[in-house]
Order: sequence, then structure tokens, then C-alpha cells
Amino acid sequence: MKVNSEYCKLQSNYLFTEVVNRTRRYKESHPDANILRLGIGDVCGPLAPRVIEALHKAVDMQAHADTFQGYGLEEGAEWLRQAIADFDYGKRLGIPMQKDEIFISDGAASDLSQLCDIIGINNKVAIADPVYPAYVDTNVMAGRAGDWMGDHWSEIILLPCTPENDFCPAFPSEVPDVIYLCSPNNPTGTAMTREQMQRWVDYAKEHHSLIIFDGAYEAFVASDDVPHSIYECDGAREVAIEVRSFSKIAGFTGVRCGYTVVPHELMGENDKGEWVSVNRIWYRHQCTRYNGTSIISQRGAMEVLTDEGHAEVMKQIAIYRQNALYIREFLTKLGLHVYGGENSPYVWVKVPEGMDSWSFFDLLLEKCQVVCTPGVGFGTYGEGFVRFSAFNRPSIVEEAMARVRDSHIFQP
Amino acid sequence: MKVNSEYCKLQSNYLFTEVVNRTRRYKESHPDANILRLGIGDVCGPLAPRVIEALHKAVDMQAHADTFQGYGLEEGAEWLRQAIADFDYGKRLGIPMQKDEIFISDGAASDLSQLCDIIGINNKVAIADPVYPAYVDTNVMAGRAGDWMGDHWSEIILLPCTPENDFCPAFPSEVPDVIYLCSPNNPTGTAMTREQMQRWVDYAKEHHSLIIFDGAYEAFVASDDVPHSIYECDGAREVAIEVRSFSKIAGFTGVRCGYTVVPHELMGENDKGEWVSVNRIWYRHQCTRYNGTSIISQRGAMEVLTDEGHAEVMKQIAIYRQNALYIREFLTKLGLHVYGGENSPYVWVKVPEGMDSWSFFDLLLEKCQVVCTPGVGFGTYGEGFVRFSAFNRPSIVEEAMARVRDSHIFQP
Repeated sequence: MKVNSEYCKLQSNYLFTEVVNRTRRYKESHPDANILRLGIGDVCGPLAPRVIEALHKAVDMQAHADTFQGYGLEEGAEWLRQAIADFDYGKRLGIPMQKDEIFISDGAASDLSQLCDIIGINNKVAIADPVYPAYVDTNVMAGRAGDWMGDHWSEIILLPCTPENDFCPAFPSEVPDVIYLCSPNNPTGTAMTREQMQRWVDYAKEHHSLIIFDGAYEAFVASDDVPHSIYECDGAREVAIEVRSFSKIAGFTGVRCGYTVVPHELMGENDKGEWVSVNRIWYRHQCTRYNGTSIISQRGAMEVLTDEGHAEVMKQIAIYRQNALYIREFLTKLGLHVYGGENSPYVWVKVPEGMDSWSFFDLLLEKCQVVCTPGVGFGTYGEGFVRFSAFNRPSIVEEAMARVRDSHIFQP
Repeated sequence: MKVNSEYCKLQSNYLFTEVVNRTRRYKESHPDANILRLGIGDVCGPLAPRVIEALHKAVDMQAHADTFQGYGLEEGAEWLRQAIADFDYGKRLGIPMQKDEIFISDGAASDLSQLCDIIGINNKVAIADPVYPAYVDTNVMAGRAGDWMGDHWSEIILLPCTPENDFCPAFPSEVPDVIYLCSPNNPTGTAMTREQMQRWVDYAKEHHSLIIFDGAYEAFVASDDVPHSIYECDGAREVAIEVRSFSKIAGFTGVRCGYTVVPHELMGENDKGEWVSVNRIWYRHQCTRYNGTSIISQRGAMEVLTDEGHAEVMKQIAIYRQNALYIREFLTKLGLHVYGGENSPYVWVKVPEGMDSWSFFDLLLEKCQVVCTPGVGFGTYGEGFVRFSAFNRPSIVEEAMARVRDSHIFQP
């Protein structure tokens, strides 16, 4: 038996695993340390009361033969897809959407990875750098990345995101077939304006490229000129797939539920030169390779799509947003170069001159017992930065910032 | 943007969708018909009381900050993997298993499909016929099937399962790299004996082939000479991946939880001729492409791995088994050729002379308002058979059989 050898090309450990390992080693040698974790981007819960109530009801329905549900539709329950179309797109954003353009899944990570399967193996892929590592790794596994050249993959087009370009990537010299965009962005915490996003949609339309748009952090959008959805841009229905999740808005990282939008207008070319519906191909993918999302998780998600449920979850989002702004202002006052945090739970911080991401990570852990995420783990252009996450209790965030200030590690 | 053109090669509609569509059309033209569904292999619940209790507790834990859980391990909670190793393998079968050989997922369908991703694109795949359609379709999508030749795929080695070979496939003339086996079998309802399974394990070992073993119906094994796990065979740890699910044993088709076993001894060759651990490759796959199974579903599954919980779910299995034996005996008495049903919820029935699978399906729907599954939907060698499912209430099964008898459709 031959294995898929592309897996053997993958570089080193997965970023977050390495963060966990270094933190554990520190804890082992300093058992009394009170470590504050502003690293991994996970919610700290608990779930909203109305969501809890909906989950309990869903469990009770599984206890009785007349309300029990076995296999559901692979693409998700009709009532949930209709509610997403009506509430998330129609009511909240005024964007028309049909339920059969929406596919429910167990989360954005699965969808972003599996979308790799339905695009042609020889498509040229453009990926922002720094970026959520799975975009690159799943394309490596699919055999679309070429060879590792020490700081980049030979066949992936890198789109550098730096303070110089305001973290909004410029168009590359080689035209890509597929473009991964994420706004509000992980890890930089910055967000594209409507005008910036519209330029990318126009570019994709002109070049018949597909945009895979990761909108997992939509709930954090606060600025008027930042779109909540790529479908706020003209023509986006012809070029973009949007991936979203209940993980961040409703604390579903453990409960697992997300969704992907594939508009009917979106077409791709097959090797006979025919243009075929990407929506139908994704439908076939999901019906064959997936057996549907937990009915309990789906019923919980449904509650987030009501006025009352949405209001409840947004209270928690407001706390995270406050944390992000707190970190942003605090570190700015300490004289650091700080980005993001205004439309995002992430704050992206330039490490002091003469350090790199991992040495700053180690220093922060050693001197402050605070965990951040090294920017270089998100790509070459992440070197020299670290990411702070606002997913925590305000008291923890405040203590972490106070420790940073009191440690004087930012003073020469 | 180019799509993955392999998707355009896929044949017709998905079997179960076509069954649903024909049934719906019949219902539309006969609104008063009381249709009895012995088609799709879905449980009819409800969940066992102890499982319901565990699910409620899991929901309550998400309601409080100190018990809330966000992202879990991608490969599944340690306590669940340990319990599977200890209870399902250790206590029930006396097979030693380590928790890091076990990977939790949202179900067998996802795992069986995704295992396609970690094997080399040029591996020669052997698949039993008839078979669960997704084995073939996922290999078509992956580009491993070649071209459709009217009744088979040019690059897939078919392993015919017929009454003549007792539904246990013979070794093919061309040696496959990967062999899909399923026992107790879907759709034929038959099961391999220990001796038959051992011969396949020996064959795989001799030829360095991988066996992907689908053990989704393990709970239905009743005969002493039928193994519950492929790891009951000598040497299987070096050649086999076993995929299992809580769907059938505990009614989790809507709740979603399953697991895959990849033993440490299992190695595959990469294109440099190095032998690498398949366990580590699957781990990397899961950590990159998946974000873990719903914590609520996992806590529910945990209850099935206790003496009390297991006893509860086996009460429901006993009812399904009784149904299967009832169908088997009833149709045998009517003079039909009937297979399976003794270690399985499925009964495989030869349709009368002069008919094919779909015409029998239509006749049964028209004359008896009973839905079965046409065997040809499971492959070329399924033509001339239909599958009856025992997943129903005994009263429904009895009425369906009475209707078949009273319709006299089996008399010339």
C-alpha cells in the first residue's frame, strides 16, 4: 500500500500543538506558575441560556419515538438553512439568499479543508500570508503546493499582508485560479473595507477566479465600512464561496456547527471545457462524503438565528470586543506597534527590534507567564509578530496586560 | 477556476435519493397510501435512557464557565478513546488496544470517505460488489477509478459477492493495494466467518495490501464463528484499519459519533520507498482537516461503553435482530431465495425470475405500499436482488410481510 506522499512534505508540527507543548514544558518546570492563556483562539463560554434550552429540547426529542430523528439531510436541516437565509442574510444584511445555497456542516475547519477536494488538482492557489495554517496544509495534502523551498511552497502564490499594505494583499503578478481570503482576518485581526473587498471581487470576476471567503469572525465586525459578508459586494455571487461558523458568534467550538454558502451563479470549468454548477458539485460532495451534522447541534444553532437568541450571544461578543480593544490600547501605550482588534478578537503585535516570534513567545511565557501565539506559525510574513486573543474573561486580560507592563520587557 | 472533473464522471443519482424520489412520487399520486418503509438503513430510535441522561448532562456542562468545553482534541476526547480501548476491545473482545490508535469522528461515512485522502492516488483499489455506494464514489472523486465502462470502472478491481461464493469474495487475479471489506455486510446482510476473514488478512499481509474494514454492523453479530472485529484475526494489526460507529448500536445516526482504529503496526510506503506510520498520517489528516466531534455527542457515546449503557442499547438491537429473522423466515416460506439477516439488520432477497431490482421495487411499492432498496443501486452484482431493512417497529415489519403475502405477487 502506498500512502499519499504529499503528507510527508508537511512541515514540522502544527502551530497550536507546539504552543501547547512549550506551555506544558514550562508548567512542568514551574508547577506553581499561574499561566494566563491569550494564545489559541477559543471561546471561554458558557453558552447562552436560550441555546442551552434549545439543546436540552433537542436531546428530549431523541428520547421519544415520535420526535426521534435519525439520519438528517446531508446538507443540513431545511429549517436551519431557511433560517440562515432569512435571518443571517435577509434580515441582518438585506442580502437575498436561498436555502439550497446553504450547506450545514460540523464547522468551518471541515468545509475549508474539504472545498480543496472539489477544485481541480492543477488550479493555482493564492493564499494570504500570514494565514490560518490549514489553508496551506490542506493544499499541500491535495498535491497542489509543489515543493517546500525553505520559506514558501513552489506552486502556491503568496499574498503578503504587512503593515505597509495595511494587511490587505495586493494582486499577484501571476493570476490565481483560487484565492483564499479571510476578513476579519485571522491572525492579523484587521478587516477589509468594502472598497478593498470589492476590488478583489472585481479582480476574481475579470480573471474567472474563485474566492474562498472565510467569514468565521463576522460577528466581530463593528466598523460601518467593513462588510459582514462578501455578498455585500457586487458580483460576488458569481465568484465567491463563503464559509461561516457558529463557533465564534455562539461559542460552538465544542458543540460544532458551521455552514458554507455556494451561490447558484457560481460556475467552474471541467476538463471538457464545460461550465458546471459548483453548488451541484458541492452538494454531491456532501451527500457522498458526509452524513449530516448532529441534529442536537443544529437545533442549538437555530436559536442563534432568532432576535432573542442573537441578542444573547452578542452580549458575550461585546465582552470579547472590549477585551480586544483593551489589549490594543494597552500595548499601544507601552509603545508597541499594534494592529487589528477593532473588528476582530485578535490583536497583532510587532515584537521588539532584535527578537523573532518564538523568542518573544518564550520571553513572554518566562517573564509574565502569559501565552500568546507566535506569528511565524501563520507563515513567513508573520515572523516578527505575535497574536493576542481576546477570548477570555476581562479580569484575565487585565491581569495579563498588567504583568506585561510590570515586567518592563518592552523597555530597552 | 477548474473544478475537479472526476465529479462529472459520477453516475446518476445517489441510490437513496432515487428511492426517496420514487416513494414521494407514489405518495403524491396516492395520498392515502400508508407506505411502510423497509428501505433505507436508519434506526427508528428512541435513544436509551442512560444515553439521554448523559446528553443532558453534557448540555448542562456547556452552561457553566467552569465545566464549559470549547475546542476538544481533533482525534477525540481521551476518556472516550480510553473507554473504547478498554470496553469495546479489551473487556468485550479481549483485544489489546491503545487509546492513541483510536480516532473519534462524526461517523463512519466521514472516515470511510476521508481515508481515501491518505492513500496514494495510484493505489489499485478492490471493492466488493454489491457494496455501500460511497466506497466507489469517493474513489471516483479522488481520481482512482478510471473511466465508467457501462457496468464497471476501468481502474477498480471488483470483487463479486454472489450466492455462488457465499457472498465472500474470492481473491482477484490482479493484486490490489487497498481492499474494502464490510462484515456483517451492507447490503447482503451476510457475514464473514473467522476463517474467511483470516484468509483475507493473510492475503493482505502476503501482498502488502491495506484492508479498510467497515465494522459498522458489529453489534448484530450473533454467530460464534463470526468475528466482531477484524483484529480477532492474527496479523490484522499490520494490515487493517477498522471503522466503527455508534449509529447502529446506539441509534446515533442523527447524533453523529463514530471511530476509526489505525494500529501502530500499520505502515505504508511513500514515493521515496520509505515505510511510514499510517497512524501518524491519519493523525495529521484529522488535526488539519477536522476540528473534533461534538462534545455532546462524545459524552452520549461514552455511556454506551459502560455495562449498564451497553445492556440498554442491546435491548433495541435485539428487537431489530428479531425483525431481521422474521423477514428472513417469512420470505423463505414464500419460496424466495433469501440471504443474510442472521448477523445483520439486512435481508438480501433474490427477485423473482424475469424481473430486475427496480421493477421489483416498483411492484412492491405499487402492490404492497412497501419500500425496499433495489440491489442494483449497490453495484452490478446487486442486480436481481433487493435489500430489506429490519430497522423498524416489529408491528410495521409484520404488517409489511403480511401485505407481501396477501398480494400474491410471488405466485406465478
